[in-house]
Amino acid sequence: MIVVMKVGSPEAEITRLSKEFEEEGLSPEKIVGKHKVVIGLVGETASLDERQIQEFSPWIEKVLRVERPYKRASLEFRHGEPSEVWIDTPNGKVPFGQNHPVVIVAGPCSVENEEMIVETAKRVKAAGAQFLRGGAYKPRTSPYAFQGHGESALGLLAAAREASGLGIITEVMDTADVAKVGAVADVLQIGARNMHNFSLLKKVGAQDKPVLLKRGMSATIDEWLMAAEYILAAGNPNVILCERGIRTFERSYARNTLDLAVIPVLRELTHLPLMIDPSHGTGRSEYVPAMAKAAIAAGTDALMIEVHPNPAKALSDGPQSLTPDRFDRLVKEELSIIGKAVERWSEPAVALV
Amino acid sequence: MIVVMKVGSPEAEITRLSKEFEEEGLSPEKIVGKHKVVIGLVGETASLDERQIQEFSPWIEKVLRVERPYKRASLEFRHGEPSEVWIDTPNGKVPFGQNHPVVIVAGPCSVENEEMIVETAKRVKAAGAQFLRGGAYKPRTSPYAFQGHGESALGLLAAAREASGLGIITEVMDTADVAKVGAVADVLQIGARNMHNFSLLKKVGAQDKPVLLKRGMSATIDEWLMAAEYILAAGNPNVILCERGIRTFERSYARNTLDLAVIPVLRELTHLPLMIDPSHGTGRSEYVPAMAKAAIAAGTDALMIEVHPNPAKALSDGPQSLTPDRFDRLVKEELSIIGKAVERWSEPAVALV
Amino acid sequence: MIVVMKVGSPEAEITRLSKEFEEEGLSPEKIVGKHKVVIGLVGETASLDERQIQEFSPWIEKVLRVERPYKRASLEFRHGEPSEVWIDTPNGKVPFGQNHPVVIVAGPCSVENEEMIVETAKRVKAAGAQFLRGGAYKPRTSPYAFQGHGESALGLLAAAREASGLGIITEVMDTADVAKVGAVADVLQIGARNMHNFSLLKKVGAQDKPVLLKRGMSATIDEWLMAAEYILAAGNPNVILCERGIRTFERSYARNTLDLAVIPVLRELTHLPLMIDPSHGTGRSEYVPAMAKAAIAAGTDALMIEVHPNPAKALSDGPQSLTPDRFDRLVKEELSIIGKAVERWSEPAVALV
Amino acid sequence: MIVVMKVGSPEAEITRLSKEFEEEGLSPEKIVGKHKVVIGLVGETASLDERQIQEFSPWIEKVLRVERPYKRASLEFRHGEPSEVWIDTPNGKVPFGQNHPVVIVAGPCSVENEEMIVETAKRVKAAGAQFLRGGAYKPRTSPYAFQGHGESALGLLAAAREASGLGIITEVMDTADVAKVGAVADVLQIGARNMHNFSLLKKVGAQDKPVLLKRGMSATIDEWLMAAEYILAAGNPNVILCERGIRTFERSYARNTLDLAVIPVLRELTHLPLMIDPSHGTGRSEYVPAMAKAAIAAGTDALMIEVHPNPAKALSDGPQSLTPDRFDRLVKEELSIIGKAVERWSEPAVALV
Repeated sequence: MIVVMKVGSPEAEITRLSKEFEEEGLSPEKIVGKHKVVIGLVGETASLDERQIQEFSPWIEKVLRVERPYKRASLEFRHGEPSEVWIDTPNGKVPFGQNHPVVIVAGPCSVENEEMIVETAKRVKAAGAQFLRGGAYKPRTSPYAFQGHGESALGLLAAAREASGLGIITEVMDTADVAKVGAVADVLQIGARNMHNFSLLKKVGAQDKPVLLKRGMSATIDEWLMAAEYILAAGNPNVILCERGIRTFERSYARNTLDLAVIPVLRELTHLPLMIDPSHGTGRSEYVPAMAKAAIAAGTDALMIEVHPNPAKALSDGPQSLTPDRFDRLVKEELSIIGKAVERWSEPAVALV
Repeated sequence: MIVVMKVGSPEAEITRLSKEFEEEGLSPEKIVGKHKVVIGLVGETASLDERQIQEFSPWIEKVLRVERPYKRASLEFRHGEPSEVWIDTPNGKVPFGQNHPVVIVAGPCSVENEEMIVETAKRVKAAGAQFLRGGAYKPRTSPYAFQGHGESALGLLAAAREASGLGIITEVMDTADVAKVGAVADVLQIGARNMHNFSLLKKVGAQDKPVLLKRGMSATIDEWLMAAEYILAAGNPNVILCERGIRTFERSYARNTLDLAVIPVLRELTHLPLMIDPSHGTGRSEYVPAMAKAAIAAGTDALMIEVHPNPAKALSDGPQSLTPDRFDRLVKEELSIIGKAVERWSEPAVALV
Repeated sequence: MIVVMKVGSPEAEITRLSKEFEEEGLSPEKIVGKHKVVIGLVGETASLDERQIQEFSPWIEKVLRVERPYKRASLEFRHGEPSEVWIDTPNGKVPFGQNHPVVIVAGPCSVENEEMIVETAKRVKAAGAQFLRGGAYKPRTSPYAFQGHGESALGLLAAAREASGLGIITEVMDTADVAKVGAVADVLQIGARNMHNFSLLKKVGAQDKPVLLKRGMSATIDEWLMAAEYILAAGNPNVILCERGIRTFERSYARNTLDLAVIPVLRELTHLPLMIDPSHGTGRSEYVPAMAKAAIAAGTDALMIEVHPNPAKALSDGPQSLTPDRFDRLVKEELSIIGKAVERWSEPAVALV
Repeated sequence: MIVVMKVGSPEAEITRLSKEFEEEGLSPEKIVGKHKVVIGLVGETASLDERQIQEFSPWIEKVLRVERPYKRASLEFRHGEPSEVWIDTPNGKVPFGQNHPVVIVAGPCSVENEEMIVETAKRVKAAGAQFLRGGAYKPRTSPYAFQGHGESALGLLAAAREASGLGIITEVMDTADVAKVGAVADVLQIGARNMHNFSLLKKVGAQDKPVLLKRGMSATIDEWLMAAEYILAAGNPNVILCERGIRTFERSYARNTLDLAVIPVLRELTHLPLMIDPSHGTGRSEYVPAMAKAAIAAGTDALMIEVHPNPAKALSDGPQSLTPDRFDRLVKEELSIIGKAVERWSEPAVALV
């Protein structure tokens, strides 16, 4: 922590303040500048809140944090080594990480009925996906909109898993549902709207299924990593970060602004694997292919893409869903080219089936 | 709903589409403009999602919503009549609403110990507050920061309620805690980070304590009202909306941007009472007095202000807390003047004690 | 400047870097923390760019600025004393500043014809305004929209000035027009879209009419003060800062988010007088009264309000304009009450006429 | 235009309003919905301002624009055909457009001296660039920062042009400098801070050098296209749009948020060629390679990348500049792979030299 004193701070106040810091177990080191005095605080400052320090004296102008607020999520925690998250699926273990091929996750926004989810699973698998996404519990802005089929949809996801061999990624929205969802899902998803639901973060941190943590709509990168830290600190090391677009002043065309620069930024900060969701990230199926290609070129470890057998009749998020045909072409003819160019592509085993 | 067709849409497609809308039970009315055709959809469109309609044809350029997405929260729902939320406190019933004096809610960010919370309660009551705020469960960005004393803090709030006669407003963060918190609180607070926690909204909507709904950090006004609609639709009519600052590009001085224009905006849209929280809204105690005065001048129904007996030693949010002395002066010498000027001030009965 | 080194920075690099700083005339002071080394740079750092320092070594994690980047605009520059800007008008000198009554500026978005501008001038003066606003040159998003009558409108403003005795505030958009506009205006306005037009800032800084500097739509407070610094550094000490709403994610109701917290924030940073423009700040005449009252309660030195004799027929910005009748009522019956409550109101001399 | 009437609007008012619209030469068509009446306005509405229409009656709830506000910039204006901008350089004509290879523009933020600019020109040309960027006039936040060498730097750019054969792209900031800059530059750049400097837009629209129009920091896509429309409407058809990052709440790591989704979005809206500037778009050289690759994968027509022979000693924007060596590797080993994968790469002729 660096404590910047206001211009004209009395010497006595600086002395008093330094003593107070010492009583807190910190070693204050004073730098007398041309106009201002600055106090560096040496010691265990990670758990200190810079806003608290500020209150120690009205002569403090501001407090600057030097240490990062997260530990387990930091790249230093693994001495610069990226982590790998291996996930069990009926078709075998699938790794997410910088030294592995891009993993494709696809499926509808919500699970509507058995035929639809099983068919979609088979189609996205044939195209090259290794995981099926699909919501049983859906966060919807309107209480009058379809809220997901809930528990019964979990059964349909289990059926789709068995029929396709794909791993299942589905969202959990309530601490009360964690066990139930975890019984079916291979990966528990925390949605953007719940990234700051700390009760839920602690709960998924205390069970052993891997967690996909979506970035909150207006979460800074530090806040996102702190949300991951909640899960890691609770004992679950298997966290994948998923960028899904942030909220900005421009919402007329793309619904959100997909922040692809998080890829190089996070590579410097964290060891955790990254996923990009261009479907929510743009909100329009027309924009998905360009952004999916860009994400692979920028170095993502995984992609999440919405696919629906009949987007016009989807119960939720139709406009951002690709048809299975379009998805098939996208993966095989467009993404594969970029994936191979950056040497992050594996020929889908499905080609042999 | 207004469906705008792309330039050059084939006549046949417009005919096909109109038929499809009719099958959905809607009456399409076509307007042929100079360059574009527009289709007005007449009928029960409130539950339709404009994004879904968009998928009906690739020739649709955009879909514009004409009806508001919320019903019970709308001013029309009460035929233009503002609602009043009356809350029981040991000192009697207190009304929140446009035709009543400004209600003052004050207290520390979190409940730290009995002495501190009881003392603060007495001090803020003496200054003119009618409710005590104080967190038992605290949403904190860091898993390593103080998370609130939880259940034991609820007991301390009950003690402060008894000692002071103030009503209690405290946050609930987990569906599992709603009953527990409701047993003590007079008002359940949904924090900004949980405004989109729909499971929690449904749960507080299904019990009978009034709810204070804070605006999410990046929630639009429509989304905020839809969150209120979740609570109202679940059966609880007693909702107070609280603006606490939104996230913008400017975060160097004030932590958030306090959006006071919501006061005149919401007066046109909803019947629900409004509260302004200048403490979270700015994040710095120095900025609180000016913004509290502004809020009253703009017409707020209530204010929530953080007060801590010793901000430098607060376990959370010290920098935005006023001392009891400063708060006393603020209410009695600054807010009262503005409150009287706009005829929204009642001499606190406490002055007689 | 505080230079934060990366974890594990080699001792030799820190030594090398310190030498390099010394060669630049700075005294580096090293603080060895638990995980990181931090170097404080003492000396003349105001003109240094923290981004430049960053490049001195790849081992630098970040550079934190301790000194403020502006000088003449800072409160310290006047030793904590607020400045006053006195402006000559036909009716006498009018002061803008913290120790003077709130100054009201009113008038149409653009000057349309002589009758309209003279009539508006008389009406707003009768209501209590001391300055007439009105655009001769209009920044319009569309090249096909009315761009202002330009030079001929300047003549009409001169006529309105003479007829009403009000001072004139009008916008200058082009370095080529500064002299022409300055020949008529009592205050030159730099619009939000030109806050970062540095050529224009230098030019208005080099002439002697006072300048009203509107905040850019996405300008931080530091950037805004730096824009003022351009004018001050070029020799013109008479700058008034005007907040007119910033751009955020919420644009459905109010067009911009009026950031009233700049009032207490700027009081700590600068000596310059402040104006609030609730008309552009909200974009809807219905929201103007509440925000004008709030601005006075929060401590603004001046208000700018759009008034048009017939908003429905205005050539620009009709929806945010009040009618003269509404404006008259607003000033006399609503603003005066708040203005008196905060002791910043002078009975308009016009009342005697 | 679609005019949405408030619930309960009197029939008489709707009739009156319809007549008023007819008097303006528009054909109003009424749709009576379940709760609301909507009036479609048929006729020449492109030049109407929806905010003006709003003022026609207090019973109007909102006005929705159906027509796009720009014409010449629209894709329809060229019947869906992308435009090509061909630019003369000493090395021959270079096309910018969707059916041509990606064009690389590189060079320093500002022109510092002859040796530096000539050396940089040669190095970036050897790597594959076809244009040299470099500022003679620099928009700087601080009046005390280096403002560019101005006119003398133009001479140095001319020398670099001659020495390298590269085309020159440089910024013009003042209407007074357009002729001077145009005498040397092959492309005139309008910087982000001047995107809304309408005087300047008109001026560059009235001369015949091609214009590179950077997106304003908080400009919506519609505003950006309207700025282009200013140039097109003034008679200059050669406009290239350049995305350089927008301002959002996240500014701790990347300085701006590079909005790559503009690529697919603009392809649907406009025929104009697109450039991406990952250097300003992220503000950190470490993030540039990933975003440059992403931009090509997403379909950009051109890239602008900052290169400086010694970033630590750069007079401006060092931290976002690549060294010539890093740039050489980036283009030849990283961008070329993606460029070839998407079939938008031409082996630089320079390889033969």
